[in-house]
Amino acid sequence: MFSRRHLTLLTDFGERDGYVGILKGAIAKIEPSLAVTDISHEIPPQDILAARFCLANAYPFFPKETVHIAVVDPGVGTSRRGVAIQLEDGFLIGPDNGIFDGVLRQHQEKILAAVELTEVKYWRTPEPSQTFHARDIFATVGAHVATGVRVDRLGVAIDPKSLTRLSLPDPQWHGQQVSGVIQYCDRFGNLITNIPSDDLAGKSWHVAAASRQIPQGDSYMSAKENDVVAIASRHGWLELGAYQRSAQELLGLTVGDSLTVVLS
Amino acid sequence: MFSRRHLTLLTDFGERDGYVGILKGAIAKIEPSLAVTDISHEIPPQDILAARFCLANAYPFFPKETVHIAVVDPGVGTSRRGVAIQLEDGFLIGPDNGIFDGVLRQHQEKILAAVELTEVKYWRTPEPSQTFHARDIFATVGAHVATGVRVDRLGVAIDPKSLTRLSLPDPQWHGQQVSGVIQYCDRFGNLITNIPSDDLAGKSWHVAAASRQIPQGDSYMSAKENDVVAIASRHGWLELGAYQRSAQELLGLTVGDSLTVVLS
Amino acid sequence: MFSRRHLTLLTDFGERDGYVGILKGAIAKIEPSLAVTDISHEIPPQDILAARFCLANAYPFFPKETVHIAVVDPGVGTSRRGVAIQLEDGFLIGPDNGIFDGVLRQHQEKILAAVELTEVKYWRTPEPSQTFHARDIFATVGAHVATGVRVDRLGVAIDPKSLTRLSLPDPQWHGQQVSGVIQYCDRFGNLITNIPSDDLAGKSWHVAAASRQIPQGDSYMSAKENDVVAIASRHGWLELGAYQRSAQELLGLTVGDSLTVVLS
Repeated sequence: MFSRRHLTLLTDFGERDGYVGILKGAIAKIEPSLAVTDISHEIPPQDILAARFCLANAYPFFPKETVHIAVVDPGVGTSRRGVAIQLEDGFLIGPDNGIFDGVLRQHQEKILAAVELTEVKYWRTPEPSQTFHARDIFATVGAHVATGVRVDRLGVAIDPKSLTRLSLPDPQWHGQQVSGVIQYCDRFGNLITNIPSDDLAGKSWHVAAASRQIPQGDSYMSAKENDVVAIASRHGWLELGAYQRSAQELLGLTVGDSLTVVLS
Repeated sequence: MFSRRHLTLLTDFGERDGYVGILKGAIAKIEPSLAVTDISHEIPPQDILAARFCLANAYPFFPKETVHIAVVDPGVGTSRRGVAIQLEDGFLIGPDNGIFDGVLRQHQEKILAAVELTEVKYWRTPEPSQTFHARDIFATVGAHVATGVRVDRLGVAIDPKSLTRLSLPDPQWHGQQVSGVIQYCDRFGNLITNIPSDDLAGKSWHVAAASRQIPQGDSYMSAKENDVVAIASRHGWLELGAYQRSAQELLGLTVGDSLTVVLS
Repeated sequence: MFSRRHLTLLTDFGERDGYVGILKGAIAKIEPSLAVTDISHEIPPQDILAARFCLANAYPFFPKETVHIAVVDPGVGTSRRGVAIQLEDGFLIGPDNGIFDGVLRQHQEKILAAVELTEVKYWRTPEPSQTFHARDIFATVGAHVATGVRVDRLGVAIDPKSLTRLSLPDPQWHGQQVSGVIQYCDRFGNLITNIPSDDLAGKSWHVAAASRQIPQGDSYMSAKENDVVAIASRHGWLELGAYQRSAQELLGLTVGDSLTVVLS
């Protein structure tokens, strides 16, 4: 028997206006038993980079074949494509504007199928709202995929190489140093870099950033009072944090700022 | 076999204090398999008008027979009535203070039953907290309805005409012009009017508001830089938006302010 | 047949960064059919006292045997213990830092079992991230308990008396007066005291706080305009509130401030 696939939602819609509830209503109308998990709806409005990070960060922790609907979509109503992408571990559904770049880059999975969403019979209506494709296209298409509809039924096949990618810097190694950037700042003021922790595993190092030397630590508590510590957490990225303080405030750094890790 | 009905929650309780989790616990205690969808819990405190809009906006997108529990309730603990209303497409449960006026007005569905909630055996306790009827009455009554309890069992029948309605203006047509008001401002600063998009379908027009002429557009992207566009989205209301900006900030308009659509 | 247990989550992770979605993904990977209810994720960062209050407040309203995962964890990655506690009515899983003190104190239930979480086979990975035990230990352990794993399998038994407790004041009776403190301030500005309403049941009294006399009332609406009322709500704590205003702002009181109830 076909078992339902898990669904996730990631948007910049916020929790206030009821838009997310509407997506879940549209999904329940197709199949009431579908399980829907919110990854975030508090992505800063129209911030595709933040959505890209959060989705890529969450993706590996969901069950195989989970269907991820991600909509941060300043171009809604224009000719930008809606797409569905089938990977080995999951499905991605949303606007083709770079929001999936993080998953595609970090997980390097084989793309099993990619289509432009043109088959209106899987939409909520053949005449979707110009401002709410999340409701009229992406949520309903995602619900259909979660019930077992094949991606190739959803529209016309496209070249996976044509999917929109973002030109973000990769970390650069120069001898005993690696340079990177802050790619995300979370609610706690932890600064997440683009340097994979695995690249630093078993090594000794410190971070040079904001004209300061930041020591290597094992936990936020290993930071000195009002000072910052650099942690290469397993299963993640090098991050800068503080104990009961915001590293962002203490350092005055933000997304896009650069830092260097110096091996000892 | 009776199949469970879907439940929704809409409140001004916020996400911080755990009150919403308590409602879901109370529902799960009655029947753990019930599916509950949040429409919003970030309605501004005690703002019945905003709740009225969000509920009416979300209502048509849920499955038939969905049970909507809506609680923005400044009069909790006083003699204001708690009510359950059965419509053709769904159920409404909450205080009788106007919060259901939007659904009743926009959807014009036949009211199949309306009762005042007086039957304490469907409450969590015969002695409810004076400040938390959502937990002790509305959530548990809603859970019972979702499991199939008939509305007429919940209390004494009331005249549907006695349900509290709000005296809000309807759009006014004068020849080639229609005047309306802003009825909601969302997280993006989009200004939602009370003029149904369908009334403008297939026509050419512009909006006069805030001493400016605002052009008709197809998408937020059709706005000029730092300028506002008026979109008559299908399945919705005429709205004023901007591309990666807040129309509310650009125009200095807010809920209740008036505007005019001028046909060409 | 063993029926799945209900799960709850309470954290200070916020809704923005996707961390909560990751916990739910990790839970769904173990058993996709588990039902997860959010109590709150907007606990102020690292505020164990607020988490303690919200969890204790919500605990009695969930079904018997609910598994509560609570993580406000400034000491993550240090030697502070992770624990699982089995009570008569539910399970508690999280760091042993006082977060469970409220449930243990208010509900006075017999502790049926308490263990330190040392059995790595119930973790997501034997090498957990130093900064995200919620994902790698607590969520996955909680999911296992919800599927029926016995608490004594999760690690080594510990003396329940060794669980971290917080030294908070209890209300003090002196003749016809009882002194207490504000233990929580909610989104509405309602000030929740540590005085159980049941202690005042059937009595007449007023509150002395912030150099004012605050009258006893039945509902927020019984407050005079711009004034505060004291309500001894059934099933809860004595609280100070106002009608469509914030009692916190009107009184200038906050968590930890003291007040006295004077019987008449």
